[in-house]
Amino acid sequence: MSFLELCRKRQSVRRYREERVAREKIERCLEAARLAPSACNSQPWRFIIVDDPELKNQVASATFSRVVPFNRFTIKSPVIVVLVIEPGNISSRFGGLIKDRQFNLLDAGITAEHFCLQATQEGLGTCIIGWFDEKKIKDILDIPSGKRIGLLISLGYPGDRLREKDRKHMEEIRSYNSYTG
Amino acid sequence: MSFLELCRKRQSVRRYREERVAREKIERCLEAARLAPSACNSQPWRFIIVDDPELKNQVASATFSRVVPFNRFTIKSPVIVVLVIEPGNISSRFGGLIKDRQFNLLDAGITAEHFCLQATQEGLGTCIIGWFDEKKIKDILDIPSGKRIGLLISLGYPGDRLREKDRKHMEEIRSYNSYTG
Repeated sequence: MSFLELCRKRQSVRRYREERVAREKIERCLEAARLAPSACNSQPWRFIIVDDPELKNQVASATFSRVVPFNRFTIKSPVIVVLVIEPGNISSRFGGLIKDRQFNLLDAGITAEHFCLQATQEGLGTCIIGWFDEKKIKDILDIPSGKRIGLLISLGYPGDRLREKDRKHMEEIRSYNSYTG
Repeated sequence: MSFLELCRKRQSVRRYREERVAREKIERCLEAARLAPSACNSQPWRFIIVDDPELKNQVASATFSRVVPFNRFTIKSPVIVVLVIEPGNISSRFGGLIKDRQFNLLDAGITAEHFCLQATQEGLGTCIIGWFDEKKIKDILDIPSGKRIGLLISLGYPGDRLREKDRKHMEEIRSYNSYTG
């Protein structure tokens, strides 16, 4: 599968089959994430794989509420991955401070996407989740209070079919040699 | 090439051969970037491809100084890509505000990495650059003053050989079902 084919196949999966995911596959997703680049190679990330059914349900329950119900699908996801943002190294923190840029968020996006793309290659489906009750999840997983959770990833065998991608046209997102091109 | 092989082959390239890059290849990198996921599918990005040699040199000169010289290599990079962060859609902005999360930075990392991975597949090398004089580059490329530049990507044929990756051990970055595992 070429990389462009992989990009077309990766989609946000919000319906999962009831089938457990072998840790061997998860480890290959983690290996892809481990190899991701980061500002000053600081690798400011830690992955907690929640595949214990009871704990997973607790974490899933912290991603939605009656008012904000759209992550309810996580209840059916057999695995949830929690990406904790670790402090970067001194160069990346200094650079980010001076330039008012949160490099560790850029880095979190990159490594999470490596994880999701390898999951696609493994025949698995993922959905990156940015809306959750951070404090509750930190309590459930014994994450030190000073840390921040960057995002969650739901993971499992997809119950959805491949959808047509809804994206902006190329002309709207690229130009050559000036902003308006 | 499997995705894991692609991850192993992708590296930050800071030495480039003097060879122009066909726009056809750049367009395939952009296509991979266009297909990237984003919070609420808001696609908050615009890519400016700077391949005019004179303009490219001006942009390159805005990535280093006598005090911070480490991006000087960009002078030899035949192309620099400027990723402008566009406002997200209402849901992603609202969600980010409530949860104090800058989703558009996560999104910028994801789409930039799609670009870089496709470049690797094309036999090209890239380096994501987070340190630059934003105001100067906005002037050079007529980027509206209210916009922010998320990052730059240098692009060209690599003059470096594949290096051994220097990464944390798996045990340092992953655990199962709790922070300490």
